[in-house]
Amino acid sequence: MRDFTVENLTEIVLEEYGSKTKDPRFNKIVTSLISHLHDFVKDVELTEKEWFEAIMFLTKTGHTCDDKRQEFILLSDVLGVSMLVDAINHPKGGAGTESTVLGPFYVEGAPEMEDGASIIKKAYDGEVSLIQGKITDDTGAPIAGAKLDVWQTAGNGKYDVQDPDMPDNNMRGVFKTDAEGNFSFVTEKPLPYSVPTDATVGELLRASGRHAMRPAHIHFIVSADGYESLTTHVFSANDEYLDSDAVFATKSSLVGDYQQSNDADLAAKYNLSTPFTHLQFDMGLMPSA
Amino acid sequence: MRDFTVENLTEIVLEEYGSKTKDPRFNKIVTSLISHLHDFVKDVELTEKEWFEAIMFLTKTGHTCDDKRQEFILLSDVLGVSMLVDAINHPKGGAGTESTVLGPFYVEGAPEMEDGASIIKKAYDGEVSLIQGKITDDTGAPIAGAKLDVWQTAGNGKYDVQDPDMPDNNMRGVFKTDAEGNFSFVTEKPLPYSVPTDATVGELLRASGRHAMRPAHIHFIVSADGYESLTTHVFSANDEYLDSDAVFATKSSLVGDYQQSNDADLAAKYNLSTPFTHLQFDMGLMPSA
Repeated sequence: MRDFTVENLTEIVLEEYGSKTKDPRFNKIVTSLISHLHDFVKDVELTEKEWFEAIMFLTKTGHTCDDKRQEFILLSDVLGVSMLVDAINHPKGGAGTESTVLGPFYVEGAPEMEDGASIIKKAYDGEVSLIQGKITDDTGAPIAGAKLDVWQTAGNGKYDVQDPDMPDNNMRGVFKTDAEGNFSFVTEKPLPYSVPTDATVGELLRASGRHAMRPAHIHFIVSADGYESLTTHVFSANDEYLDSDAVFATKSSLVGDYQQSNDADLAAKYNLSTPFTHLQFDMGLMPSA
Repeated sequence: MRDFTVENLTEIVLEEYGSKTKDPRFNKIVTSLISHLHDFVKDVELTEKEWFEAIMFLTKTGHTCDDKRQEFILLSDVLGVSMLVDAINHPKGGAGTESTVLGPFYVEGAPEMEDGASIIKKAYDGEVSLIQGKITDDTGAPIAGAKLDVWQTAGNGKYDVQDPDMPDNNMRGVFKTDAEGNFSFVTEKPLPYSVPTDATVGELLRASGRHAMRPAHIHFIVSADGYESLTTHVFSANDEYLDSDAVFATKSSLVGDYQQSNDADLAAKYNLSTPFTHLQFDMGLMPSA
């Protein structure tokens, strides 16, 4: 029988998984994971106490996850892993709008709303803003009937699912583009906010001397038959955290420039008083591969 | 502001953590972790679907952990990580007995028992066995009053904490060595058993074509003032799984040779009928560093 040592263990474990795992893709993933995980442990010469702290950290991260909170996604986010996966799968280029991270607060099944509706169910004295845009394909032609899943924090810096005092689906909605590819909705202009710091990700950020702030943004998932789904944000120009996003998710092409508007026709159409805040942000989808 | 790409993201994340994390040891650990984790993601070009499956796998692993079960330790075990940490922290050599993994089923606070007592609270028709040994220091001198924390599976292949039909602390006990450094207890000879396969570790093992069996063993944590604590197993000679332990924890020096005994004096002392099964396994502790 074999004795396991620092020198031979990784090779033996890799041989065991590599020789037995039949699915070629899973074989590649599990052997690469073992190789890098062992290299990490060897590089830092992890102590037993540190190993046990890591076990407890992962356990607590799991226990923090429930149907409304995903601390492992947030951990992936603050380590830059989510953004790396995004960058690998959505290289820049072409007419498509750039993507960014999903984040831990997406909720399926937000209500479908009429074009131009307001997603404000509970107001926080924020800047009432009209968001408009056009969804186009790689030739610049409008895409009718594209679906936009929209979500953002409310004026207290929380998503609805983080705040029991907020109505469900506050600051969330699902919209469709019209025949010309246009969409519009009314919201409060988002503010910078802190990711949750009351669990393991907060411990990591504090231990690392990093702030927990994200620049203000609205989340979008834009999808249409025959096109690749786009998961992205629209950030706000001049936000003080654009250069230090806690989750490394900013891209200059995703910065939207909110303007003050005195357009009386628009104000009347969307039931706003002038002046109001207005953002036009168009997005492009790429055809499915 | 910076745009993040596959090419620059890892460097930016490392600079962020590396420049801000003040504790030098934590700085080394977090930057090495990020470096290896990003390299893994880049090596396999992880897809978004795979990333999400990994998030769900980790979440389910966390949800499987409770006060009686530690699926993250078991995951670390089956990936060879626990054994690697053990090998790094306890290099072979000297008069000390070799260590091996703690495993996920250690429970603090097992009952202190008299020398020679039986840890069988619920019998399973196993081979009733007398386990004896001597604890010595690096000069071979006996260590009196050393504490031995002992645990093993019962004859149904389960630890007490896995089986609601088993009394608490079945097959567990805490013993002390006498003035000559000797300890003894009565048990049923352990059998090979399967690690739990009803959660994520089972999914991983099945996807990898690996069996879930561990060779039979008794766990020990041996400690005494002035000595390094020893976490180890005693395996059973000739076990069919000694060469394919699901958690890579075997060492040839830790194999104990159970014998049939007709020693009438021992039988009378420990209230056994002859012939009985007998194991003598001595262990050495190293002085604290």
